[in-house]
Amino acid sequence: MFEDKNQEKTSLEELGEFGLIDHLTGNFKLHHKSTVKGIGDDAAVLDFADRKVLVSTDLLIEGIHFDLSYTPLQHLGYKAVMVNLSDIYAMNARATQITVSVAVSNRFPLEALEEFYSGISLACELYKIDLVGGDTTSSTTGMIISITAIGEAAKEDLVYRSGAKPNDLLVVSGDLGGAYMGLQVLKREKEVFKVNPNNQPDLTAYSYIIERQLKPEARKDIVELLMNLGIHPTSMIDISDGLSSEILHLCKNSNVGCNLYEDKIPLDPTVISACEEFNIDSSLVALSGGEDYELLFTIDQKKFPELKGNPNFTVVGHITEKNEGAHLISRNNSKIPLTAQGWNSFAKA
Amino acid sequence: MFEDKNQEKTSLEELGEFGLIDHLTGNFKLHHKSTVKGIGDDAAVLDFADRKVLVSTDLLIEGIHFDLSYTPLQHLGYKAVMVNLSDIYAMNARATQITVSVAVSNRFPLEALEEFYSGISLACELYKIDLVGGDTTSSTTGMIISITAIGEAAKEDLVYRSGAKPNDLLVVSGDLGGAYMGLQVLKREKEVFKVNPNNQPDLTAYSYIIERQLKPEARKDIVELLMNLGIHPTSMIDISDGLSSEILHLCKNSNVGCNLYEDKIPLDPTVISACEEFNIDSSLVALSGGEDYELLFTIDQKKFPELKGNPNFTVVGHITEKNEGAHLISRNNSKIPLTAQGWNSFAKA
Repeated sequence: MFEDKNQEKTSLEELGEFGLIDHLTGNFKLHHKSTVKGIGDDAAVLDFADRKVLVSTDLLIEGIHFDLSYTPLQHLGYKAVMVNLSDIYAMNARATQITVSVAVSNRFPLEALEEFYSGISLACELYKIDLVGGDTTSSTTGMIISITAIGEAAKEDLVYRSGAKPNDLLVVSGDLGGAYMGLQVLKREKEVFKVNPNNQPDLTAYSYIIERQLKPEARKDIVELLMNLGIHPTSMIDISDGLSSEILHLCKNSNVGCNLYEDKIPLDPTVISACEEFNIDSSLVALSGGEDYELLFTIDQKKFPELKGNPNFTVVGHITEKNEGAHLISRNNSKIPLTAQGWNSFAKA
Repeated sequence: MFEDKNQEKTSLEELGEFGLIDHLTGNFKLHHKSTVKGIGDDAAVLDFADRKVLVSTDLLIEGIHFDLSYTPLQHLGYKAVMVNLSDIYAMNARATQITVSVAVSNRFPLEALEEFYSGISLACELYKIDLVGGDTTSSTTGMIISITAIGEAAKEDLVYRSGAKPNDLLVVSGDLGGAYMGLQVLKREKEVFKVNPNNQPDLTAYSYIIERQLKPEARKDIVELLMNLGIHPTSMIDISDGLSSEILHLCKNSNVGCNLYEDKIPLDPTVISACEEFNIDSSLVALSGGEDYELLFTIDQKKFPELKGNPNFTVVGHITEKNEGAHLISRNNSKIPLTAQGWNSFAKA
């Protein structure tokens, strides 16, 4: 739908690679003193003084990670940044810079890339991120996005996946499963559209979960909130692949077990009603759905009073000794071993 | 040619994404104290103390940047690293870490990715680079590689594109045009192979230029050599898109003009003979060919004695005032404006 069938659109060929990147990134503002030199040389130059430097990278492929038939390009740009910032926040760090590389076929008009970069730009403005590098190139078929996020933290603030201790509380921010159910709604509408292109769906009832899918927010605010509350998590990870798989990462890296309580998993009412409509188990959606970009962390029990009653946090379980294993305590009180059902892009569809 | 038609090969699906990245990166050694935490958390953690941090990123797409029908996967892995390190060296800095993300269709067997990573591993060993992150994912069609290189330098050692001054000398390392002519030979052999698959070509005469194309080296040694010679370039860039386009970048960023002497452009004898065979002008190849990954830099004239007679360097021209423009002084002494004929991946083939 973004191919250049409209002759008034600008072809990428006219601009060439250098003109294109200048055109797309010319209006980006820089926010950080640590950005010594952004776009325009062989490499960006950054200065973090005595602070630690965080680097995380992600590759997003059309047809695997996103579907342009229901993803507006501006949202895609925004989400691609969020996915990467989320990894930096999951280290309890401050995200400061990104590089963005994007490949599209030369049938994409300039205007499509401008839309994509407007989403990148909005994310950079709202999250105070400097765009410091990257390139645009052509692809043989679909769109490919590669983003590297860079951040900084004082050594003592960093939180790894490996610090959880027995009796620590297991906490999640926000609620889970929304992004996955939003995707189910969008996929269904796509099928309806194929049959009847004139159908005008009313998606008002699904707006929360569709927004969770198309325009998620990375939880910068949670990192700031934890700092203000004086809570230093013992371990942390972001929830990109579903709660179950992330908990298992924490347990493996920290060499511990855990009990997760099914009835504690935070679910938005919209998620519950969509699950009923689609006849899917809502716990399964939260455990394996992915793309929520909430934070999962562990805290010392003594810190519980600091976040008790705070609507941003839900205690969903606790850490145990490793030999007790990692379990889900179901609503009917049976103990089920947690298994990673995180998303495997290599699995046959 | 790397698709999984052999049932003894291991499918990527069996391993899943987490198993796969562990399997492929398990044997990589770390070389740098600055690598606090490599692969295995949400982000890598690096510590550069008071040194500046360099970041550069590149996206390589099958069918656009490489052709697997004549590119061995090990060479491709090696070259993908070189392309990125070259950008860090072009800042007169030390490359220290990389992240590697790769997408392939699930018809690629594990063994193909192992070959690719063996090339990455060799490059990391020889250039003392720590692999600190990245991911593997699936693609709908071809192979996609995204690498981010990270480096460090003391502030006073950094060289930008912007420091060239009138009367500075314009210097290139090594020789030019080899990578482009190597590609022409490989493309011709591919056409021959299509017609007669039993043909066994003798490519001995082309081994230098084929190696320049398939297994280029980033000029870490030149950065070290310049330091040992006490030469601090006034500006520097790596030659990835052809001499002409790189010179224009230096001139534009430094706000100067230049005279480039055609008869000074360093050409290997193999390049000259291949150009005769293919009936291509060798100067044009050096000016617009690209992928040589040599360094182009400017030095104060006073520094000329330090590199005079050194076989690693060729003075190819000098910087002028901006209003004199950027020119090629041809062999017959005519003055031709330099134009960027660097590679534009969006141009129609």
